[in-house]
Amino acid sequence: MAEEAKEEIKNENIEAKEEVEETVVEELAEEKTPKKTELELAQEKAEEFENKYLRAHAEMQNVQRRANEERQQLQKYRSQDLAKAILPSLDNLERALAVEGLTDDVKKGLEMTRDSLIRALNEEGVEEVVVESFDHNLHMAVQTLPADEEHPADSIAQVLQKGYKLHERLLRPAMVVVYS
Amino acid sequence: MAEEAKEEIKNENIEAKEEVEETVVEELAEEKTPKKTELELAQEKAEEFENKYLRAHAEMQNVQRRANEERQQLQKYRSQDLAKAILPSLDNLERALAVEGLTDDVKKGLEMTRDSLIRALNEEGVEEVVVESFDHNLHMAVQTLPADEEHPADSIAQVLQKGYKLHERLLRPAMVVVYS
Repeated sequence: MAEEAKEEIKNENIEAKEEVEETVVEELAEEKTPKKTELELAQEKAEEFENKYLRAHAEMQNVQRRANEERQQLQKYRSQDLAKAILPSLDNLERALAVEGLTDDVKKGLEMTRDSLIRALNEEGVEEVVVESFDHNLHMAVQTLPADEEHPADSIAQVLQKGYKLHERLLRPAMVVVYS
Repeated sequence: MAEEAKEEIKNENIEAKEEVEETVVEELAEEKTPKKTELELAQEKAEEFENKYLRAHAEMQNVQRRANEERQQLQKYRSQDLAKAILPSLDNLERALAVEGLTDDVKKGLEMTRDSLIRALNEEGVEEVVVESFDHNLHMAVQTLPADEEHPADSIAQVLQKGYKLHERLLRPAMVVVYS
């Protein structure tokens, strides 16, 4: 009976052990699945925010770069509108100076005014358009004359109104009479 | 003996169970620690990048906001330098117009030139400084006259040179003679 009992209890023991192990395996299985998912979720979240961060960082650098470029452009061409608007005053002054019979005082006053206007424009990067041979990017032909041996095609006969550019940007073309 | 054996085996059983549980606990502990660390690391990484992302995002908005403000300021005051530089031309024109004995043609030409300059300046936001009673923010007293009953202190006797401002920013003060 003792043997029998021992045997019986051994079996019970084994069963108990198995039961315990089973429970443990279940517990492990139960804990493993959500734990792995939690880890995966955390890893996915980390990756997602790393990507978001990298994109935001790159975008910020782009925003800064664009803002700098834009600022430089704005600075470079800031005087464009006012410069364009005062060109007619400069034209008027030059026309007034071409009038015959001005007193010396008036002539001197007009010249000073014209020169200070030109100086102010130059300081902002405004320059007169060079008029050598006809260039459709810089000149507007408002009249043509027939070309001959002395006056080859595309040579300029007369400048009716000066052209101006701000740095490389044309403010207005020179109005010219051109041989063609 | 059967009872004794049973008892003994029960104890063994309990011990065995405890042993099994201990092993399981150890196994769990062994598995939990690295697993928890990995999870913690992932969570920390996720949190770190979330914070970095939020900071980068906020910084980007600041950069954009500042760039917009700066662009608006640049646009608003873009004509400041050129406007300031052409004020002497306007002074010259007004002085020329004050000269006696101008022919009508010259006078008309000068007036047109002056008016187109003023119009160009106005369009960019440049306005003449108002001269009513003396304001040290807008006027510069270059000469004083003794105040009397007819001319109270701080009233303006004469404007020697007009002042101008660009929006609310003073380009140059009006030069005045003031009673004091």
